[in-house]
Amino acid sequence: METKNIGLRGIPVADTKICDIDGQKGWLIYRGYNIDDLAKHSTFEETSYLLLFGDLPTQRQLDDFSRSLVAERTVPDSIIQSLRERPKTAHPMDVLQSVIPMLADYDREARNESRDANIRKAIKLISKTATLVAAWSRIRKGNEPIAPDPRLNHAANFLHMCFGNAPDPETARLFDVCLILHAEHQFNASTFACREVASTHAHMYASIAAGIGALSGELHGGANEQMMAALKKIGELSNVKQFVDDAFANKRKIMAMGHAVYKTRDPRAKILCPMAEQLAAKSGERKWFDMSQELERVARARFEEQGKNVYANVDFYSASTYYMMGFEPDLFTPIFAVARMSGWAAHIIEEKFADAQPKPELYRPEADYNGRRCDDGCAYIPIDQRTEK
Amino acid sequence: METKNIGLRGIPVADTKICDIDGQKGWLIYRGYNIDDLAKHSTFEETSYLLLFGDLPTQRQLDDFSRSLVAERTVPDSIIQSLRERPKTAHPMDVLQSVIPMLADYDREARNESRDANIRKAIKLISKTATLVAAWSRIRKGNEPIAPDPRLNHAANFLHMCFGNAPDPETARLFDVCLILHAEHQFNASTFACREVASTHAHMYASIAAGIGALSGELHGGANEQMMAALKKIGELSNVKQFVDDAFANKRKIMAMGHAVYKTRDPRAKILCPMAEQLAAKSGERKWFDMSQELERVARARFEEQGKNVYANVDFYSASTYYMMGFEPDLFTPIFAVARMSGWAAHIIEEKFADAQPKPELYRPEADYNGRRCDDGCAYIPIDQRTEK
Repeated sequence: METKNIGLRGIPVADTKICDIDGQKGWLIYRGYNIDDLAKHSTFEETSYLLLFGDLPTQRQLDDFSRSLVAERTVPDSIIQSLRERPKTAHPMDVLQSVIPMLADYDREARNESRDANIRKAIKLISKTATLVAAWSRIRKGNEPIAPDPRLNHAANFLHMCFGNAPDPETARLFDVCLILHAEHQFNASTFACREVASTHAHMYASIAAGIGALSGELHGGANEQMMAALKKIGELSNVKQFVDDAFANKRKIMAMGHAVYKTRDPRAKILCPMAEQLAAKSGERKWFDMSQELERVARARFEEQGKNVYANVDFYSASTYYMMGFEPDLFTPIFAVARMSGWAAHIIEEKFADAQPKPELYRPEADYNGRRCDDGCAYIPIDQRTEK
Repeated sequence: METKNIGLRGIPVADTKICDIDGQKGWLIYRGYNIDDLAKHSTFEETSYLLLFGDLPTQRQLDDFSRSLVAERTVPDSIIQSLRERPKTAHPMDVLQSVIPMLADYDREARNESRDANIRKAIKLISKTATLVAAWSRIRKGNEPIAPDPRLNHAANFLHMCFGNAPDPETARLFDVCLILHAEHQFNASTFACREVASTHAHMYASIAAGIGALSGELHGGANEQMMAALKKIGELSNVKQFVDDAFANKRKIMAMGHAVYKTRDPRAKILCPMAEQLAAKSGERKWFDMSQELERVARARFEEQGKNVYANVDFYSASTYYMMGFEPDLFTPIFAVARMSGWAAHIIEEKFADAQPKPELYRPEADYNGRRCDDGCAYIPIDQRTEK
């Protein structure tokens, strides 16, 4: 089996009980539950509990878990202070990657590797990441951070901390669903980075910071930000066709169309599209949604001419949704991180406490060396005898 | 081929021209050059040039490169200020992981993905990491950081920034060799983490921060710190035999003995052992070195009785060496990071500019799902109908 330069595609590296994707049927499954059901009936809190503990909670369990999350929303003043001292131009993903290991400074259990301690770290990370992303979104604009509101759930509180007013219930619920849809997606690049670092027995903060690094790459988390850039570049509904024609003529990729795993429509896009439309209708500003929908229609038609069946993926509609909610495009990926924190933490715990026998090894692949060899004419020569290359 | 739970051991994921390891012969090769030659004739600056550019420099090239490194030794005041505001108990690896993405705030080229910009980022990271590790080693003790001295090379300047006095030439050279020996070691867990994050097109700072997370795990970078803890626990030369007897009786691992790749003596341990002895003799405090040597002798003999040929690896002698130089054990792994920065940067550049066709994909492995399925009796039930598990 050739395994080089294929990015481990198709190579199973572990067993998992967290997430299943059926690309043919278009199913995304968290711990056995179809994403359709979770988007319809669940909340981000309940879904996070499901991902971390493996089962849906009873009311009592959910109440306890939600209370723990609320209790962990504050972050140390000195971390907020460090945000104030950063250049206002700092990228939100760089800021987020750097503040995660700072949280370890204040966690006496940072290096406690019991399962319970890891669950407590997961709860801290889920709550405090939301606070930190919201705080930076304000501080970089010269605004004061807004204290969390314990009466609001995770989604509504995040909007409150970003924008300073309690969101209407419809918008809060739409954002809640966005968080559910982005909470988990198996061994993608950032989750694999989290598990890879955790496999060395590094603590959860160090592992999550690696995942945030991977998510910051434009091939991974950056797609929804680029989708918004494309929409802004197109500018008007009437320009969509020309944009697609140009992209096909110049073999440019159309952002957020197609998915490596889903052969049918991305189930998350299917859920998000009508909700984005609802938000657009409500706000009276249909432009970005209408452009997105037209872009999907025109691009799909062009792909069909080539015999390809390509659908919009989740990033396609999350871009205009977040934009309509008032988020700047460079916050889309940090919001992705806020949602994915539950999935990452669940994977780190699975990596650390895998029931496989023998225990999984730390990830240390091979490489084929095709460079020079010291036994093959590559001898060290003194510096004054070298010639410039 | 079974690929699960083996940590990708034996699975080649890419070609590389940076480093070759011949475990049978006990050879470690950087860009074609044997580590024995580099330890004897080279400096950390020259070795870093070799790793980054692929060839040994001429005098002019080395002078230019060394000047660039010296010019990049300062770090922004606000980053030093952020160190002052952290709890003095913060772990040096958590501190290091968090300051790396902060450097991106001040680099206008952070998201410039040309090869030249990546080389410049590598130079910044090599120099500034040394300054930051030294600064934290002082600030956490309530001492002022010491400004870099442009007259000193990388190794001597690091000792100067940590301890405040110019090191004697012999100690500076020994530390220089330590940095050379730790600069690179192919696709180990931290290097793979760097490459994995870089494969998403994340920038070099984000990728290096992931590598630091992986290095912080006790299965990877923590071995020399644990070796020192073992030496302190043993306490006296006369206790070594009892310690080994207990370890074998209780099937406890003896730190830093044996290596996954080297079937003969680790070439780095072979180089370091006599240098550590020299330092011990000179300092008049032979205790830690003598204990290390006795520990290797006794443990090797016990392994031989079991028909195993097990040698000390590089961490075995770097522990006592760093300790004799005056470093506290929790700085051993950050020093490893200072040295490995060159190798990590070289690997990130190789990942970003691989000449393989087709271009390498981002790392996104598969997992085998062995959990529940929504089409197999796992339906979403309302919360008031659930029973506690």
